[in-house]
Amino acid sequence: MEIRKILLTEDEMPRQWYNVLSDIKMNPPLGPDGKPVSPEALAPVFPMNLIEQEVSSERWIDIPEEVLSVYNIWRPTPLVRALSLEKALGTPAKIYFKNEGVSPPGSHKPNTAVAQAYYNKEFGIKRITTETGAGQWGSALAFACSQFGIECKVFMVRISFDQKPYRKSMMAAWGSNCVASPSTETKAGRDALERDPDTPGSLGIAISEAIEATVTDETGQTRYALGSVLNHVLMHQTIIGLEAKKQMEKIGEYPDVIIGCAGGGSNFSGLSLPFVSDKLNGKQIEIYPVEPSACPTITRAPFVYDHGDTAGYTPLLPMHSLGHSFVPAPIHAGGLRYHGMAPIVSQLVSEGIMESKTVTQLEAYKAGVLFARTEGMIPAPETDHAIASVINEANKAKEEGKEKVILFNWSGHGLLDLAAYDKYFSGEMKDYILSDEEMLKSEEVFANYPKPALLKSR
Amino acid sequence: MEIRKILLTEDEMPRQWYNVLSDIKMNPPLGPDGKPVSPEALAPVFPMNLIEQEVSSERWIDIPEEVLSVYNIWRPTPLVRALSLEKALGTPAKIYFKNEGVSPPGSHKPNTAVAQAYYNKEFGIKRITTETGAGQWGSALAFACSQFGIECKVFMVRISFDQKPYRKSMMAAWGSNCVASPSTETKAGRDALERDPDTPGSLGIAISEAIEATVTDETGQTRYALGSVLNHVLMHQTIIGLEAKKQMEKIGEYPDVIIGCAGGGSNFSGLSLPFVSDKLNGKQIEIYPVEPSACPTITRAPFVYDHGDTAGYTPLLPMHSLGHSFVPAPIHAGGLRYHGMAPIVSQLVSEGIMESKTVTQLEAYKAGVLFARTEGMIPAPETDHAIASVINEANKAKEEGKEKVILFNWSGHGLLDLAAYDKYFSGEMKDYILSDEEMLKSEEVFANYPKPALLKSR
Repeated sequence: MEIRKILLTEDEMPRQWYNVLSDIKMNPPLGPDGKPVSPEALAPVFPMNLIEQEVSSERWIDIPEEVLSVYNIWRPTPLVRALSLEKALGTPAKIYFKNEGVSPPGSHKPNTAVAQAYYNKEFGIKRITTETGAGQWGSALAFACSQFGIECKVFMVRISFDQKPYRKSMMAAWGSNCVASPSTETKAGRDALERDPDTPGSLGIAISEAIEATVTDETGQTRYALGSVLNHVLMHQTIIGLEAKKQMEKIGEYPDVIIGCAGGGSNFSGLSLPFVSDKLNGKQIEIYPVEPSACPTITRAPFVYDHGDTAGYTPLLPMHSLGHSFVPAPIHAGGLRYHGMAPIVSQLVSEGIMESKTVTQLEAYKAGVLFARTEGMIPAPETDHAIASVINEANKAKEEGKEKVILFNWSGHGLLDLAAYDKYFSGEMKDYILSDEEMLKSEEVFANYPKPALLKSR
Repeated sequence: MEIRKILLTEDEMPRQWYNVLSDIKMNPPLGPDGKPVSPEALAPVFPMNLIEQEVSSERWIDIPEEVLSVYNIWRPTPLVRALSLEKALGTPAKIYFKNEGVSPPGSHKPNTAVAQAYYNKEFGIKRITTETGAGQWGSALAFACSQFGIECKVFMVRISFDQKPYRKSMMAAWGSNCVASPSTETKAGRDALERDPDTPGSLGIAISEAIEATVTDETGQTRYALGSVLNHVLMHQTIIGLEAKKQMEKIGEYPDVIIGCAGGGSNFSGLSLPFVSDKLNGKQIEIYPVEPSACPTITRAPFVYDHGDTAGYTPLLPMHSLGHSFVPAPIHAGGLRYHGMAPIVSQLVSEGIMESKTVTQLEAYKAGVLFARTEGMIPAPETDHAIASVINEANKAKEEGKEKVILFNWSGHGLLDLAAYDKYFSGEMKDYILSDEEMLKSEEVFANYPKPALLKSR
């Protein structure tokens, strides 16, 4: 009988995160004056120890014991050979995935939530605010804060708050306070409600509320947390790829292709960045971030300087962006509905080290159902996008008769997204592909924005 | 840093189930004529290879390779030291739990669902019918049938079908057909709808529908599957306890107390039966099945002969029972709302080898929330009952200053039961304790039923 799961013991878990900034060059974020932002300027929003990580170029950063001890609740996660999926596809490719769905909130998000909660606690912070769209990030931060005895306040986009009540219940189980955004608790929220009392809300408004709730706390003991995009967030996620590398070494394998779905870029980067380092040193690997056709940020949008949020509160970040006022189509993969892409991923794509792929919503769900009926576990809608791309690669390997090794990130389970599967089965689910018109609109946005320099890391 | 999880590799997974019938004496099930039921009489309902397992007294039964291969999707499951819970309680007791929530449907149920699907397939069966209450069993069988390419039809009690739509979605994701019961597809269903078109349904009616759908299939290629109570079901679950034993051996531990919640008795037996064998040979262990105060079958009901279903279709089974027409209070732990108890558990309790405990619903949820905020994972409402009892034992150990080793079964996660946690937090959740009046009514039921003989296995 062939082995499905390659395990590591807690003793074998990596003790350091990998910082890709030691290996690549990046454009700096810019302030409203067009000049690079100083770390101090971010101090009212993030604790200084995380700001230091954001700008650090040290290659390895020690994972604190307290963080490792919480990681041990679910890490190391299994590396799984998708034997039944391979068989169903009749492919000569070997497909491996890293199962990040085994964490308490069910996704990769706690890898950084736990680290961020810990560093905030260390810095003397008593309360963290954040926003959440589909709810994966909010529930991960709620879990992490419960582990360190920190108060947690989540502003959840109204439409998701109403459609996904279980996410709010999860946060309550971990003792966090989750309110629908726009709320009456902030000026940004009240203004939004005055403009439209029936607004479904948006991630942009929710970010504004969370930041406002932080900077207006006069005790100075509140900070804001972000679940993707930023350098330190991606670095905390590298535990995924570092474990995967160790696990593949154990069985004498090395990936030819690495795949992950990419919204803000954190789960994809967590798996792929430790391999980027090898690629910069000459290893042959294909690395594919996978986007929804409805929101193909890397694939179709330019590499520019843009804000991370809709309201324009954040510095200008060097990234692929559809424009900070872009509103993606209502696909059922909330985690992939983001107008931008992590600067690190954007930079690596601009250098040709990674190459994006897109799949449509219906392709994604079809792949997710095949996965559930072969490998057993029901994937999150976001993860379905990675699986669809894996299947395309496995089919290509079949055509070419090549025994490729494909590694992908199973970023989370879909047990709180089952209503979307119902919609897929009912035939009511639609495909959305970004039109050329919409793209042109997006290009206009950037006419007057500064442009990032083209850099070369190898 | 102390280790939380004790793992086994797939190679270390036990290759045989343990059959407790090799170690204890049992009263036989009786037919309508008051005589022991012959295996042949069950042939229209179950495949003969499972009936043979039901009556076997062989000590070890080989787990087929095909079953092991599917078990490998999530087994061996981790044995976890509940370090954070211990710390929160300030107990000298060491608390270990077996995490059965890592299976694709999220509970221990697939341990037998996979085995039953396999044996049905081997026997040439093309379609399995079953009933489900809260949905754990129906979704486990749907998953198992998808692995072996068998059709699966689930009759789900109407009120749960409406309240827990995600369970139905899970079954659909695995390709099963789930309908609300009573349905118009069977005579039993149509009769029930005629009596009351707005009936919420009951497990009794759903069992009748599932059995009718099996015995009326003229092709002879349909059989019925049960998720608990029967001997072969409990035997398939012993993989839990056999793994736990190996894992404890690895760290030089042996349990003083074993705890599991008990509805029909299958998850509790899965963990405890391999240790019963040691207890019969003189080992000192306390073994506690935990029941809800609303449905205290072992704790307060007599050891009698009674039907397993409300309609009285099944043979008379020797078990603790509140009467097959007993309707338990509407507690949010559907899996513990059963009028009877597995004959094996009933027999072992009657011999004093196990001793039942009860906890109320509010005690259970309070315990579940403490668990979520310490150990991270959110437990199923059924599992909350086991946790409440574990906390009682850990507190007792604290009072006595004893370093006891407590082992319990974490039978499943609560991610599809979060609405019940909302109710707990809102303060709307009620406690139910079975009244003496109700108990007396239940005693009357048995006036004319045969009585099981009192047997002694040691």
